[in-house]
Amino acid sequence: MVDVGIIGAGQTKYGNHLLSMKGMWAEAARNAFNSVDKDFQPSQVDESYIGSVAFGGSQLGNTAALLTEHSGMKGKPVRRVENACASSGFALRDAWMAIKSGQAEVVIAGGIEKMNDLTPERKRFWLGVSGDTEWERLAGLTFPGTYALMARRYFHEFDSTHDDLVHISVKNHLHGFDNEHAHIRKQVTFDKAKNGFMVADPLTLYDCCPTSDGASCVILAADHVVKQFTDDPVWIKASAAASDYLALHDRPSITQLLATQLAGKKAYEMAGVTADKVDIAEVHDCFTIAELFATEDLGFVERGLGGLFARESRGMKNSGEVCINPSGGLKSKGHPLGATGTGQTVEIFKQLRNEVEKNRQVRDAELALSHNVGGSGATCAVHLYGRSRQ
Amino acid sequence: MVDVGIIGAGQTKYGNHLLSMKGMWAEAARNAFNSVDKDFQPSQVDESYIGSVAFGGSQLGNTAALLTEHSGMKGKPVRRVENACASSGFALRDAWMAIKSGQAEVVIAGGIEKMNDLTPERKRFWLGVSGDTEWERLAGLTFPGTYALMARRYFHEFDSTHDDLVHISVKNHLHGFDNEHAHIRKQVTFDKAKNGFMVADPLTLYDCCPTSDGASCVILAADHVVKQFTDDPVWIKASAAASDYLALHDRPSITQLLATQLAGKKAYEMAGVTADKVDIAEVHDCFTIAELFATEDLGFVERGLGGLFARESRGMKNSGEVCINPSGGLKSKGHPLGATGTGQTVEIFKQLRNEVEKNRQVRDAELALSHNVGGSGATCAVHLYGRSRQ
Repeated sequence: MVDVGIIGAGQTKYGNHLLSMKGMWAEAARNAFNSVDKDFQPSQVDESYIGSVAFGGSQLGNTAALLTEHSGMKGKPVRRVENACASSGFALRDAWMAIKSGQAEVVIAGGIEKMNDLTPERKRFWLGVSGDTEWERLAGLTFPGTYALMARRYFHEFDSTHDDLVHISVKNHLHGFDNEHAHIRKQVTFDKAKNGFMVADPLTLYDCCPTSDGASCVILAADHVVKQFTDDPVWIKASAAASDYLALHDRPSITQLLATQLAGKKAYEMAGVTADKVDIAEVHDCFTIAELFATEDLGFVERGLGGLFARESRGMKNSGEVCINPSGGLKSKGHPLGATGTGQTVEIFKQLRNEVEKNRQVRDAELALSHNVGGSGATCAVHLYGRSRQ
Repeated sequence: MVDVGIIGAGQTKYGNHLLSMKGMWAEAARNAFNSVDKDFQPSQVDESYIGSVAFGGSQLGNTAALLTEHSGMKGKPVRRVENACASSGFALRDAWMAIKSGQAEVVIAGGIEKMNDLTPERKRFWLGVSGDTEWERLAGLTFPGTYALMARRYFHEFDSTHDDLVHISVKNHLHGFDNEHAHIRKQVTFDKAKNGFMVADPLTLYDCCPTSDGASCVILAADHVVKQFTDDPVWIKASAAASDYLALHDRPSITQLLATQLAGKKAYEMAGVTADKVDIAEVHDCFTIAELFATEDLGFVERGLGGLFARESRGMKNSGEVCINPSGGLKSKGHPLGATGTGQTVEIFKQLRNEVEKNRQVRDAELALSHNVGGSGATCAVHLYGRSRQ
């Protein structure tokens, strides 16, 4: 079976962009192309997968072809993948399978979103539709409201309070502060985050990620051509994905994400590793409570002890344990829906190659994980990455 | 390399449905499940790919997970694929690659669209966004207008008139008349079609496909498990796809589709066959002129002679030549955007297994082709199918 290496990765800054969709994609793609160590031509790309949710508020169709038509990949097959906020996590998975299938040698996986051209109402709409529509959105539940329900229930079931979430927010803002691609580069104090503007009780502004514009792009290659492009690839050691019911009331428990657990378990099995071997994890912290769940669901800490893990800031970089969201995560780096999944991969590619800003570099990292969630857990993709091929 | 067989296929009737999106998907999936000859459980599905463009006018997100959450495939990875009207042609390609990759043994490819809940303005919008937006749609060009421009130019360059298109309309309405899944089951006379209500000169109502609701679902399996499910599979002998510029003015010629030519050529090479060996072709006749282009671009007739081919009704079933659109095509069977690609595969699965209504059965067909186009040719997927594995 073919192994899949990452030979290049790039992104735009996340934030409020003046660039068009096409301009953002061009910037991310160009950054990815330029990151390839040896000679690379976009015409060498065999196939592309681009994740996007709202696509400029749905003002455009045939969107993948539109983005790539002037990217030097003329004629090549391309499609959009949509799985709510897990769109580009699945784009990455499908790109990985395209290479494994033997049908393609060089494949692009990427993602894009433009949220800040939309009115606040339309932004809320595009976030809300990723959850359940019939039982939740149309009944008035907002997306922060969904995660607020989950947080409240978690505090009820386990030894945890909102203070634990505040620690997550403080950590991610600290991690993102030096990230030149991050949307919100502000360090926040515990008190400020604890007493932030209330969005959906118990979640304050500092528990919620921003809505960002941005694009990200990753170039994958089959093992037998990797050497043409770089002597320093990052290998994808596992790709796994899962789904779950959209509406919270259909799930036996709302203090864990079954899709994360399933995808995580499959990924560890595929790579032949255990959670304690992971050095870096980019997890889907659309809300701080989502990061807490991820630390448990991915096996970094026992169920029910995620609050303690957060309280002790055990996800902090160079703390000796797994570094959670060295990029700043969705909270600080930002969350351009469809771009987020492969944006996590961009961070991991650079971290594992020791190419991030000095202050942010996680030392001696060998094994990394990305965790990309759609909606409140209806879809999830988990990938494992390493410096060694096997 | 793993070969991929189709073990089941089903669809809803195309038309104006009272069913919800979820209900339509359930019906198509159930029909596909029930079509499997031996015991089949939806829990055996490893992965799903579902094509959709407008998804109910974009009122829903996380759409693939939403459709499948009550289909007996709980927990399994699923994603939406969007490539305008070629969405499920690409879903089929990605499902095929998933099996070829060795990561999945049983995979669903399907598609769905609900157009008739939308106002006429919104319908027009969702068709228009599949073409170019900046230079065409926002300048006032409608989707029929785009193809009208292409038709006019074709008549200018070659020996052809609107009468040739009328022959295509008459043929497809004849083919679709006995198709119980078809949207418009009406035979039309040459005179009626020729003098139809003008939509975009020279295209009349009888040159334009209807906007339909509908869903389609195809079940693929790896060669080593096919026998568990059926002794009578249809094999996918080739899958190929390509892209092109969205806007007509960017293309060197607007009387041919480069994406079709590229994808067709690759597909024939992969299967080791030539165009003259194809017995059945389900081609993307969103407008009659699009079928004319397809007959040339896919090599059924020389460039410039598509008008003659149509005039002589050489695509008619059991005429001794390739049967073009035995289902009735988009013109008569209908066009529920995202469902169309895998809907073509449903027809081919049944034709090659001698399972369609008696009057519609194409005799002694061995090799079939499906051709699914996005927009006015920005994306295209071509598949070849046969009774024999090699």
